[in-house]
Amino acid sequence: MSTVYKMIEIVGTSNESYEKAIENAIKKASESLKAISWFEVVQQRGSVKDGKVEEFQVILKVGFKLID
Amino acid sequence: MSTVYKMIEIVGTSNESYEKAIENAIKKASESLKAISWFEVVQQRGSVKDGKVEEFQVILKVGFKLID
Amino acid sequence: MSTVYKMIEIVGTSNESYEKAIENAIKKASESLKAISWFEVVQQRGSVKDGKVEEFQVILKVGFKLID
Amino acid sequence: MSTVYKMIEIVGTSNESYEKAIENAIKKASESLKAISWFEVVQQRGSVKDGKVEEFQVILKVGFKLID
Amino acid sequence: MSTVYKMIEIVGTSNESYEKAIENAIKKASESLKAISWFEVVQQRGSVKDGKVEEFQVILKVGFKLID
Amino acid sequence: MSTVYKMIEIVGTSNESYEKAIENAIKKASESLKAISWFEVVQQRGSVKDGKVEEFQVILKVGFKLID
Amino acid sequence: MSTVYKMIEIVGTSNESYEKAIENAIKKASESLKAISWFEVVQQRGSVKDGKVEEFQVILKVGFKLID
Amino acid sequence: MSTVYKMIEIVGTSNESYEKAIENAIKKASESLKAISWFEVVQQRGSVKDGKVEEFQVILKVGFKLID
Amino acid sequence: MSTVYKMIEIVGTSNESYEKAIENAIKKASESLKAISWFEVVQQRGSVKDGKVEEFQVILKVGFKLID
Amino acid sequence: MSTVYKMIEIVGTSNESYEKAIENAIKKASESLKAISWFEVVQQRGSVKDGKVEEFQVILKVGFKLID
Amino acid sequence: MSTVYKMIEIVGTSNESYEKAIENAIKKASESLKAISWFEVVQQRGSVKDGKVEEFQVILKVGFKLID
Amino acid sequence: MSTVYKMIEIVGTSNESYEKAIENAIKKASESLKAISWFEVVQQRGSVKDGKVEEFQVILKVGFKLID
Repeated sequence: MSTVYKMIEIVGTSNESYEKAIENAIKKASESLKAISWFEVVQQRGSVKDGKVEEFQVILKVGFKLID
Repeated sequence: MSTVYKMIEIVGTSNESYEKAIENAIKKASESLKAISWFEVVQQRGSVKDGKVEEFQVILKVGFKLID
Repeated sequence: MSTVYKMIEIVGTSNESYEKAIENAIKKASESLKAISWFEVVQQRGSVKDGKVEEFQVILKVGFKLID
Repeated sequence: MSTVYKMIEIVGTSNESYEKAIENAIKKASESLKAISWFEVVQQRGSVKDGKVEEFQVILKVGFKLID
Repeated sequence: MSTVYKMIEIVGTSNESYEKAIENAIKKASESLKAISWFEVVQQRGSVKDGKVEEFQVILKVGFKLID
Repeated sequence: MSTVYKMIEIVGTSNESYEKAIENAIKKASESLKAISWFEVVQQRGSVKDGKVEEFQVILKVGFKLID
Repeated sequence: MSTVYKMIEIVGTSNESYEKAIENAIKKASESLKAISWFEVVQQRGSVKDGKVEEFQVILKVGFKLID
Repeated sequence: MSTVYKMIEIVGTSNESYEKAIENAIKKASESLKAISWFEVVQQRGSVKDGKVEEFQVILKVGFKLID
Repeated sequence: MSTVYKMIEIVGTSNESYEKAIENAIKKASESLKAISWFEVVQQRGSVKDGKVEEFQVILKVGFKLID
Repeated sequence: MSTVYKMIEIVGTSNESYEKAIENAIKKASESLKAISWFEVVQQRGSVKDGKVEEFQVILKVGFKLID
Repeated sequence: MSTVYKMIEIVGTSNESYEKAIENAIKKASESLKAISWFEVVQQRGSVKDGKVEEFQVILKVGFKLID
Repeated sequence: MSTVYKMIEIVGTSNESYEKAIENAIKKASESLKAISWFEVVQQRGSVKDGKVEEFQVILKVGFKLID
């Protein structure tokens, strides 16, 4: 039978880089979802404190296979 | 460790206003999700009957922290 | 036979709220169109005078059934 | 009380057509969600092998009523 | 003199396919508009009942020449 | 009472410039609509023949007051 | 000579409604800018606390005439 | 070494369906490009003659591996 | 050190053409900003009076170097 | 057999107008592509020097028939 | 009283990474704006020289509180 | 004579960062195109395996001068 996937939207954060923020989000989501196979970046944001970047924030769509 | 959030999409309705529709949606979603902290309006629509607005409908993205 | 709808774009105005602006637009459009069944908000704007909102303006797409 | 809906994003696949891909996705999602009432097409993609379409892929938003 | 076209937005429906939905919409619109020459798909949606697609819905922009 | 406007979409053409294409479209639309007060450019296109621009084409939204 | 306008982006907040949030933003911006004449809603968001809307937030583009 | 892909934009046509239009475009593009592996639908349009759809037109982005 | 630019949004007007409207806006903005180096067209609009274009209006983003 | 088109993206420049920038781009592209039949404006930009427009820049998608 | 924020658009550059480009832009903007609290990435671009990335460029919207 | 540029779309990959993925794509494209002068990020994606990012993927538009 044909494969069906689900996509969910998550937000990862890091004080280092967007790549770390993505990895943090994927790692956390993988705790409950075993079959994540791809992601798409939806938006990149961040917080600032005292003239410095405090946190890089990335909104992701994460796709995984629905298992029977 | 870095914080991770999830975002889900819900639709609230009200025959009074978009603000009421948002409040109805947030209230309902909060029954099962305790950590909702922000929302974004995605689309505003409505239904019409006999030349009058019957229902204001608002599509929201709602964000909440994933708790360990 | 299958149903066909038409959508037109109208702009409603109100000095009170966007909901009133929508209701004004729907009411006016209903004078000539009997079968309006839904609307979508396309844009929200407004005019300002002496540092106060003078008028809320809402651009709507309005959908109605084409009757045979 | 006012109705609240939830929308989720799923991806259906078919080697025949987008309509089949949609039907496959809706069927699969209906196994766990009883109240699906509408869908919106978000994106249409596909995979190619040896110069032929291998799979039509459709990303859908699916809406269903949150039941009390 | 230079040609001027008008574009209107219509919604076609079909329980078979988006192509049928488009054909239904074009056929209906052609009853009152003789000079339709092109269309663009704006959105594809659908309704679901008992876990099956009930109706494919397509929003179209239809263009036709304004005749003197 | 509050003012309500309608917006329609038209396409103007010219072999000289987009400004001429807009003027041609507005002029034609004004034959049947007396109260046009503004327009927005939606898209700019054109046709080419033998390596030269044959026609500038502009898609406009035109707004006018609905008169009682 | 021809008129030139400037547009700036501001964010208004209110715990009541988007209309109040707009009015708060326009009022504040008018303290330093005397010639504001229109605004456009760019995005509507909000914060949530204990399952209730805490604050409606609206991002606006505000336009005003550049005075010689 | 890391893989690099190129994407090109093509337009397929068919008087039957969008799926046929996609297949026609992929087939034609595969004559000169051996490594096409995926496509994305960018826009769906069509031409109309005498109140009937004459041609379904689909704009695709087609991706293929750049081979060393 | 690395260069930083600022972008502001302005609206130029002209009764002749969009190019003139852009030039008017750039000229006016240059009275207070010496380092403008590029612009992007955000939207093209216009006003209409008695069936004729009264004013071409262009919304621009203007970029300039922040000087130490 | 059904017709297939290809679309490429080019940028034209002119110190006079966007129309001239389009004509320059089409002319140049026609040196190597004989079958260009239409174009779409993707973006309009420009460079500024000493408070004056130095160059109008237009990004175009250009479509042409793939010949067997 | 309710809080009002202003958002400005800046462009940061770096020959290392987008994160550095963001930090450079925030640092520069903070010299004149003390209350920056968040940013959003609008676009990511770059310049190339001799087949190598010369500069990563990031367009940001930066938000800060308007202080009374 | 006025300069004309061409833009092509490529996809770079890296298991380290988006910056590396961009550099890989630019390097590869430069083998056949000598005059690349800028790029724009169109989309950022990635693949996931066993709960870890396997590959960062970046879709770029790359611009280069058409040489006579």
